[in-house]
Amino acid sequence: MSGANKNAEKFNWKQGFTIDFDMVTGLSKSEAQTSVRFTSNMRGMFADEAALEELITNGDPMVYEFYEMGAPEKEGDLAIGTSITYPGKVGNEYFMTRGHFHTILETAEVYYCLSGNGYMLIENPEGDWSAHELFPGEMIYVPPRYAHRSINTGTVPMMTFFCFRGDAGHDYGTIETKGYRKLLVEKDGKVEIIDNPKWK
Amino acid sequence: MSGANKNAEKFNWKQGFTIDFDMVTGLSKSEAQTSVRFTSNMRGMFADEAALEELITNGDPMVYEFYEMGAPEKEGDLAIGTSITYPGKVGNEYFMTRGHFHTILETAEVYYCLSGNGYMLIENPEGDWSAHELFPGEMIYVPPRYAHRSINTGTVPMMTFFCFRGDAGHDYGTIETKGYRKLLVEKDGKVEIIDNPKWK
Repeated sequence: MSGANKNAEKFNWKQGFTIDFDMVTGLSKSEAQTSVRFTSNMRGMFADEAALEELITNGDPMVYEFYEMGAPEKEGDLAIGTSITYPGKVGNEYFMTRGHFHTILETAEVYYCLSGNGYMLIENPEGDWSAHELFPGEMIYVPPRYAHRSINTGTVPMMTFFCFRGDAGHDYGTIETKGYRKLLVEKDGKVEIIDNPKWK
Repeated sequence: MSGANKNAEKFNWKQGFTIDFDMVTGLSKSEAQTSVRFTSNMRGMFADEAALEELITNGDPMVYEFYEMGAPEKEGDLAIGTSITYPGKVGNEYFMTRGHFHTILETAEVYYCLSGNGYMLIENPEGDWSAHELFPGEMIYVPPRYAHRSINTGTVPMMTFFCFRGDAGHDYGTIETKGYRKLLVEKDGKVEIIDNPKWK
């Protein structure tokens, strides 16, 4: 997120560089390190708070991890990396990322799914929303103004390669305060999209 | 290249969309169509002009194709697609893309290689250049100000997924006039980087 983060100085943003991202796990053999989110980092994000606390007590599993590479926060640069959302549920709600708007709201983001499967849930401040299925080879264009959240509805890690403008920034606060309008839950072994009872 | 191109209206750039890109061939089953470059479109690009004319006469093979999706030409949007460079040689010089600067020079581009192998050759107007090897799982960050050209040094198609700012634009003219400072040729079965004898 910050140009001064732990990965930024490892790469030559001025003259170019290559980096490996495993096409199945999403992880890099390079010096880059992921940012990691466990269930204990996700309080307030899932509908079933008791189920979340039980997971936290019983091993606190990792929900997702992703690369913050520290791209220059300039409009001509690009932030890139992979995002890996692990399979699991909190109650009947699928493991997911926090999701965020961009601080510069009018900036898009692109995710190309390489392994696993799930959904990208997007919504704009005016309430337009949609849920897009992702699987290997499927790309989603998240347009300017849309918050976006990765949701793993499968049984293996879901890995996407992402790209957005270097200065776009992350606004996590709006989603933390309001939540998303919709939730993805399992019902009778199928994915169901329901209203978020806690949406403000 | 243009927002008014044949693909632009097929996709919902305002509210988001998904599209498939085959992770081996790079091709999409969607309505999107590729832009195609044959050897006959590559006159003046390779050192050995006689060898090029012979290829044009003998079947005019495809050198590369790529998706111009018609993203809005705005600074908040992103142009995305795949680029597929086919294996082959003109004389001893490997098949490659024309390569280009961005019209807005200070904009980066990202390429994530999914199949095949080769190089990305980059250089800036001041003459700093480098050749970066690509293979499945390897991403290259092409920084602002650097022209970039994909080169297939392998025996199967080289496919990359790319992303850059929607309004960056393509400047092909500078490369067509000046050429690149370096060429990638095969010598004794190996890749060799040599000075371009025609560089102006």
